[in-house]
Amino acid sequence: MTFDYRRTHFCHELNPSNVGENVTLSGWVHRRRDHGGLIFIDLRDRFGLTQIIFDPSICPKTHEKASSLRLEWVISIKGRVRGRGAHLINPKLATGEIEVEVRELAILSKAKTPPFHLHSDGLETQENVRLKYRYLDMRRALITKNLSIRHKAMHETRNFFTDQGFLEITTPMLGRSTPEGARDYLVPARISPGHFYALPQSPQMFKQLLMIGGMDRYFQIATCMRDEDLRADRQPEFTQLDLELSFSTPEDLKKLIHHYLKTLFKSCLGFEVPDTFQELTYAESTERYGTDRPDLRFGMPLIRLDSLAKECGFSVFKDQITQGGVVKGMCVKKGADISRKEIERYTTFVGKFGLRGLAWMKRQEGGLQSNIVKFFSVDHLKEIETSMQAEEGDLIFFAAGDQASVNQSMDHLRRLIARERGLIDPNRFEFLWVVDFPLFKWNSEEKRLESLHHPFTTPRLEDLGKIDSDPLLVRSLAYDIVVNGFEIGGGSQRIHDPELQEKIFERLGISEEERREKFGFFIEALEYGTPPHLGIALGFDRLVMLLSQTENIRDVIAFPKTQKAADLMMQCPSSVKTKQLSELGIQAKLPEKKTSSVEKEMI
Amino acid sequence: MTFDYRRTHFCHELNPSNVGENVTLSGWVHRRRDHGGLIFIDLRDRFGLTQIIFDPSICPKTHEKASSLRLEWVISIKGRVRGRGAHLINPKLATGEIEVEVRELAILSKAKTPPFHLHSDGLETQENVRLKYRYLDMRRALITKNLSIRHKAMHETRNFFTDQGFLEITTPMLGRSTPEGARDYLVPARISPGHFYALPQSPQMFKQLLMIGGMDRYFQIATCMRDEDLRADRQPEFTQLDLELSFSTPEDLKKLIHHYLKTLFKSCLGFEVPDTFQELTYAESTERYGTDRPDLRFGMPLIRLDSLAKECGFSVFKDQITQGGVVKGMCVKKGADISRKEIERYTTFVGKFGLRGLAWMKRQEGGLQSNIVKFFSVDHLKEIETSMQAEEGDLIFFAAGDQASVNQSMDHLRRLIARERGLIDPNRFEFLWVVDFPLFKWNSEEKRLESLHHPFTTPRLEDLGKIDSDPLLVRSLAYDIVVNGFEIGGGSQRIHDPELQEKIFERLGISEEERREKFGFFIEALEYGTPPHLGIALGFDRLVMLLSQTENIRDVIAFPKTQKAADLMMQCPSSVKTKQLSELGIQAKLPEKKTSSVEKEMI
Repeated sequence: MTFDYRRTHFCHELNPSNVGENVTLSGWVHRRRDHGGLIFIDLRDRFGLTQIIFDPSICPKTHEKASSLRLEWVISIKGRVRGRGAHLINPKLATGEIEVEVRELAILSKAKTPPFHLHSDGLETQENVRLKYRYLDMRRALITKNLSIRHKAMHETRNFFTDQGFLEITTPMLGRSTPEGARDYLVPARISPGHFYALPQSPQMFKQLLMIGGMDRYFQIATCMRDEDLRADRQPEFTQLDLELSFSTPEDLKKLIHHYLKTLFKSCLGFEVPDTFQELTYAESTERYGTDRPDLRFGMPLIRLDSLAKECGFSVFKDQITQGGVVKGMCVKKGADISRKEIERYTTFVGKFGLRGLAWMKRQEGGLQSNIVKFFSVDHLKEIETSMQAEEGDLIFFAAGDQASVNQSMDHLRRLIARERGLIDPNRFEFLWVVDFPLFKWNSEEKRLESLHHPFTTPRLEDLGKIDSDPLLVRSLAYDIVVNGFEIGGGSQRIHDPELQEKIFERLGISEEERREKFGFFIEALEYGTPPHLGIALGFDRLVMLLSQTENIRDVIAFPKTQKAADLMMQCPSSVKTKQLSELGIQAKLPEKKTSSVEKEMI
Repeated sequence: MTFDYRRTHFCHELNPSNVGENVTLSGWVHRRRDHGGLIFIDLRDRFGLTQIIFDPSICPKTHEKASSLRLEWVISIKGRVRGRGAHLINPKLATGEIEVEVRELAILSKAKTPPFHLHSDGLETQENVRLKYRYLDMRRALITKNLSIRHKAMHETRNFFTDQGFLEITTPMLGRSTPEGARDYLVPARISPGHFYALPQSPQMFKQLLMIGGMDRYFQIATCMRDEDLRADRQPEFTQLDLELSFSTPEDLKKLIHHYLKTLFKSCLGFEVPDTFQELTYAESTERYGTDRPDLRFGMPLIRLDSLAKECGFSVFKDQITQGGVVKGMCVKKGADISRKEIERYTTFVGKFGLRGLAWMKRQEGGLQSNIVKFFSVDHLKEIETSMQAEEGDLIFFAAGDQASVNQSMDHLRRLIARERGLIDPNRFEFLWVVDFPLFKWNSEEKRLESLHHPFTTPRLEDLGKIDSDPLLVRSLAYDIVVNGFEIGGGSQRIHDPELQEKIFERLGISEEERREKFGFFIEALEYGTPPHLGIALGFDRLVMLLSQTENIRDVIAFPKTQKAADLMMQCPSSVKTKQLSELGIQAKLPEKKTSSVEKEMI
């Protein structure tokens, strides 16, 4: 090594107490300004920026060498720290009170001109270009900060659960395919031609087996994979905080997770999570917000108006009730300024969720006004005003239809209006437990019961009798944790009685053969002394998004994939050699040269 | 919940200070003894054992219920802690001074009779049976302990590197296939038919990209996968502690890893790692021990005797030297008791590594004796005695042949003799750095240069001139860490100059097209300002084996696979539905019903 580039300090560290010291700094040329014969460089590393100065009157040779420096070159310098004049202090910079007068310079690597600026929030650059050059994108302060938060969140999580007596246990990546819900990613097994491994969609069965194995308290920050058609906020591989414990109760688990989130939000964000979380049953939540994951940062609850609707003179409402539907109202505070045109837009919007129309009334001076008030008696209007707690200047929307459409439409409308009217405080976090989910749901296409969560969920003890007679009324010991309208985690007490497990499989119409094929080893395991156990899985990427206060999941993942599941930097998936496939005992059915998802997106 | 099974204590906790307390314990029936009308049960959980007593004179109903209890049933009890009589104290048990007098009993789960005993070291049971019932095997104290050590090792590792300013960054599981060395596991991409992801063999390229991205210090406890034919101590998926740092030197990295191992061995095993590690160059190590990963827990170095061999009258030695071979001796202290028959066995043994024969001399009273001493002059015999430091009662083995065969044979023989003659202290750990590896090796089949490590390794600065003229003499800035004869990690300073990287690729005979296809994105990345960087990867499973003092890699993995890469519990790899394959755009070329590796092993 001709130049010792080992640093005495990182680029965020120097301050007035270092003035006069000789230091070595190494990093990237972030900014360059030439001014009155001097060259000013902002030198950047993962930690921050330091201004360094090349002065021809101090060191002419080094100054001359510095004149070749361009953005993103990697350099190492030795120099002396000096204070800045009071008027030159940069209060925005941690090192803004000092600068370094350079004596020696080594150019460690040159750099081509980056394809986009690294000083901004990156939003002006097409995301696909940033993803192709992810190693450059990563140098932007935003991504660097997010990856640091992610590290801190992982470490705090591990400290917390280790302190609580949990063991982190790594479960296999190469597992068995038990297609249920999402598609598995498959891996051909070379040693057993015609046979396949599946990549884990979650460690669900492994964690229950760990409880049967007596591990008592398990957690893992686990990579999971689902081969689904991706939505904007999904990645084909994602991270979940997975945990399971024995001889405990849902109440204890909720306390544990509350304590964990309190610790995490405090240490990573300085945010004080309240001492208690709200809790709603599934029935309460869907009734009041049309969804089981309501955003509680704002109001606008849905109010059921069935009895009034049944009696009123407005046939649109009345008919729906007669046909078994519902009518719900939602009061937009100070919404009387919403124009007809906007109401039309909202009406089109809810149409996407199955609602035929949107009725409305404005509470003006003197009472409710709209094109439909004539269908209501004065008493009914008074009743609406009271039920909806409408005050002067408010607007009420009404939805009438079958329950599912009304709920879905009004949930979306509620969130849209909150966003558009600035009702959401981005610095607020509203936590909520949703409990008492139904155990089953009805698959009307296949005319059979399905698990709402998964077939290992325990029914509530008091509802056991209804499994045969009234299955859709059976509530489960499942719980979801919701933050700001996102389900960040869910779990349940599991079935530990093999007979009850068999009964549930039976009720789900899973044949004995299918049970044996898919879950045979698991049902056998249950028979060897299974402790009562329960657990939860939290979406870790989503948690880090909350802690990073970003809405783009790709901003919290080092090397993310696109919505088409492509890695634009590595350029994969890619074609492989025929020899590789033949060794694996498979062949691709389609010509290998077909356009890949990578190519599609970079066009 | 009819019986509150939440525990007041774990099964290792109660001691004389708890006498008189009412407690709740839950766990498994580990042992049962009936004695004088009393029922004694050792109750087990992850943490330990507690003796509980059912006394018909105290609680007849509970005693009656307890009479049905069988091994591995899961129970919860409430009772009172009492001291044991002095003569009944069990000093082997943490809770051996107390017992719990049971008042209430709940049977939480019954259990079938386990297919093997859970009290022993498990060695009497066929391992495949234990692996099939891994959830039972895991209840044995040995596996429980190993998984706890693994957790602790992971946590200490993360604490250590976090304290040193490293960020843990998760790299993708679905990556690009760049077959090099081992085979990739492939994953068909449904959205891009005919295209594939590869599971990572190591995060090598990602970690270098993280350095280019300015992340400065990265680490990860990473799951990696290689589709190789497995040896006894290999798993298809394995864990490595992977790290990389910028602006640092190999000396600093060696200090860091030394500090890390010192911390790890101290906290997980209470072992004091010495303040310095030995260091040998690759040349020194192979010369002295025949290998680049010598076990230094015992002596028996190899001594080169070429010049003597050249002059002596023993044609077997002389001819080898003339033909360019070597002669090395190894002195077995107090080995004169080794019989002819044993020497014959050793001779057969080294034959497997290419050595035609094994000469020997015993240092008896009066000098060296053997069937070949007659070919040596008195002076030569004296010289042998001195060179080999042979004392009365010792035996010297001689190997003559080409260098590779001599080294390989004597390395294996040295280890075999040490094992057989009890020269290895199992509680000793000998750490060693091996450095200055050759950059290239010669592939004599394909008549071309290959990288000894990988093509991203930096040559030593002073050897740069030999890349063209004398490539096999170029030493690299690579380093391996060896413990007790196992390479537990290796790494290098990486190339950060794109021109040097191109030159190395060229020298390796990788065509421009192949370079672009395989490493194009990476070579491009190098051009955007790459800091000097270096790193290392440690085999984490192997580290945990050392900390757990086990020689079976499957004993430190929760759900291991067999040597045929099968999970005998989950029964995978398995056949999948034709629909799954057709969605993925692939077909299995062989009939699906061919016997899988699972079936083969369970027959």
